[in-house]
Amino acid sequence: MLPIAVDAMGGDHAPGEIVRGARRAAEELGLPVVLVGRSDDLGDTGDLEVIEASEVIAMDAEPGSSVRRMKDSSLVRAAEAVRDGRASAMVSAGNTGATMASALLRMGRIKGTSRPAIATPIPVPGSTPTTLLDAGANAECKPEWLVEFARMGAVYARDRFSIETPRVGLLSIGEEAGKGSPFVKECFGLLSDPAWASAAGAEWIGNVEGRDVMTSDVDVIVTDGFTGNVTLKTLEGAMKALIGRLLVALDTDDDTRAAGATLAGPLDEMISELHPDSVGGALLLGVKGVCVISHGSSSADAMVNAIRVASEMVDVEMVEHLAAAARPVD
Amino acid sequence: MLPIAVDAMGGDHAPGEIVRGARRAAEELGLPVVLVGRSDDLGDTGDLEVIEASEVIAMDAEPGSSVRRMKDSSLVRAAEAVRDGRASAMVSAGNTGATMASALLRMGRIKGTSRPAIATPIPVPGSTPTTLLDAGANAECKPEWLVEFARMGAVYARDRFSIETPRVGLLSIGEEAGKGSPFVKECFGLLSDPAWASAAGAEWIGNVEGRDVMTSDVDVIVTDGFTGNVTLKTLEGAMKALIGRLLVALDTDDDTRAAGATLAGPLDEMISELHPDSVGGALLLGVKGVCVISHGSSSADAMVNAIRVASEMVDVEMVEHLAAAARPVD
Repeated sequence: MLPIAVDAMGGDHAPGEIVRGARRAAEELGLPVVLVGRSDDLGDTGDLEVIEASEVIAMDAEPGSSVRRMKDSSLVRAAEAVRDGRASAMVSAGNTGATMASALLRMGRIKGTSRPAIATPIPVPGSTPTTLLDAGANAECKPEWLVEFARMGAVYARDRFSIETPRVGLLSIGEEAGKGSPFVKECFGLLSDPAWASAAGAEWIGNVEGRDVMTSDVDVIVTDGFTGNVTLKTLEGAMKALIGRLLVALDTDDDTRAAGATLAGPLDEMISELHPDSVGGALLLGVKGVCVISHGSSSADAMVNAIRVASEMVDVEMVEHLAAAARPVD
Repeated sequence: MLPIAVDAMGGDHAPGEIVRGARRAAEELGLPVVLVGRSDDLGDTGDLEVIEASEVIAMDAEPGSSVRRMKDSSLVRAAEAVRDGRASAMVSAGNTGATMASALLRMGRIKGTSRPAIATPIPVPGSTPTTLLDAGANAECKPEWLVEFARMGAVYARDRFSIETPRVGLLSIGEEAGKGSPFVKECFGLLSDPAWASAAGAEWIGNVEGRDVMTSDVDVIVTDGFTGNVTLKTLEGAMKALIGRLLVALDTDDDTRAAGATLAGPLDEMISELHPDSVGGALLLGVKGVCVISHGSSSADAMVNAIRVASEMVDVEMVEHLAAAARPVD
């Protein structure tokens, strides 16, 4: 396998945690990794090769203009490495918008795909994650795009989580067909055409609601990028609030503190199971290459997971499967 | 105070739990309550008066046509009781759409209000709840309506949670002014006009994100009814998933089960603090009367809370405050 290009300069804890995660992915998992960035700034990179890139796109920079202007940035160089056949995939914890723009401009779109979408797996206790897309690439969408998201999400859920026939639902505010905004009703109509589900090997299950996201009742949820991003961040906030409140409950008195100590193992397991880092980052689906977008706050652990996921998606030939599902049937 | 009209026929556990809750509100809290429904079906109503209503609007009935057709339904009669000065407020755990339609058609709108909105308090550990509106009354909104929601939400947060100068934010997918869908950007522009905040005694704090909902960083969050409903149900689902996963962690082995028994008190307190029943239902703001919408699955406990909240909002003269804030300044 060609190496995974890791943007060493992107993320709140770059380059330190990023390089540490990349080294661990190489050393512990035996994955081929190449760092992209300013080699002088990267510290001890071990045996890893470095693709030089002199510029860094800041976390809060305006994505489109930065990518066009900073042609020697680590993000643009990482995307170019994939395009030029020097790398098999790219991984970044940097500016999400700039990651998308770099991938889109350098790798290009898969034929039959109007817009790439961010697919984010949401942890579901005791089950495979629910894949939510679009989680923020397109703040406003056309109804037809959601059919493409549905198709891509199904292919991804099969390749990533081995779900034979992924059940795909449309995020709405009621289960009945007539529920939702005019936009959602139009999406519902388009998604009810069996052609896309057949091409993607999916099962269309109609509307789902916010309360279904963390259940095993649905495998893929499609929505516009605004609603998807609000949903994702609402979940993150709820997890944080609840874990915080749980720690308060455990700290009530000496007895509860002792009980808390007994529970440390199972509670740590629960928290890591539900932590966004554990699912290994989101994928930008629809570009001609594997592009993993990791949380801005990614730790070395998160980077190991993100690199592992990228290599798995290369191995399983996800991009080829997305392209095949997008091809019109003769 | 005039009695609170309680729709005895609405809710998954009606009339049993509803009547039990209404009796407890009267007997334990000394609140004036009148039941609305088919007296033959209500069981032991104790000393409560009953306003007869022969029809019942089903939980899944189409709201608009049901309300127009079923003029002797418990919901329509409850709203009429408020309009006619026989009751001070209405409370229902029934069909949400039909509750809104009954209140809107029978009570009418407060002058200067384009559309009523559902304001739902979200529990925040260790702080006052965050009020989210619109939580589902209007699946599609005009940008100007969100300014009205902001004004109403601020008045409500002050009357309900004694927040002197409520901080009001707009739900978006980034904190910067330019973030969000075209709709949200237009709302941002309108909300940046200081006139509404001054009329409502509020502080406009700009965009907030899904992760801020369960924090003490914001008091009122405005959004369209689609996004608001998705957010609310996502939170409910997250709470359910996390509590369920916590119970699994506590059930790991004999030691953790013993620790769980020690923690029963503090964990029950945590769960009831975060349970939607504990906040006492949502309010339909913008109609000429207090209208509390309780969860369809309301227990007697939830009804006691909903009736208590209704009486508090009557006492504090919330509707008069909403009307005053909506009045154009001379």
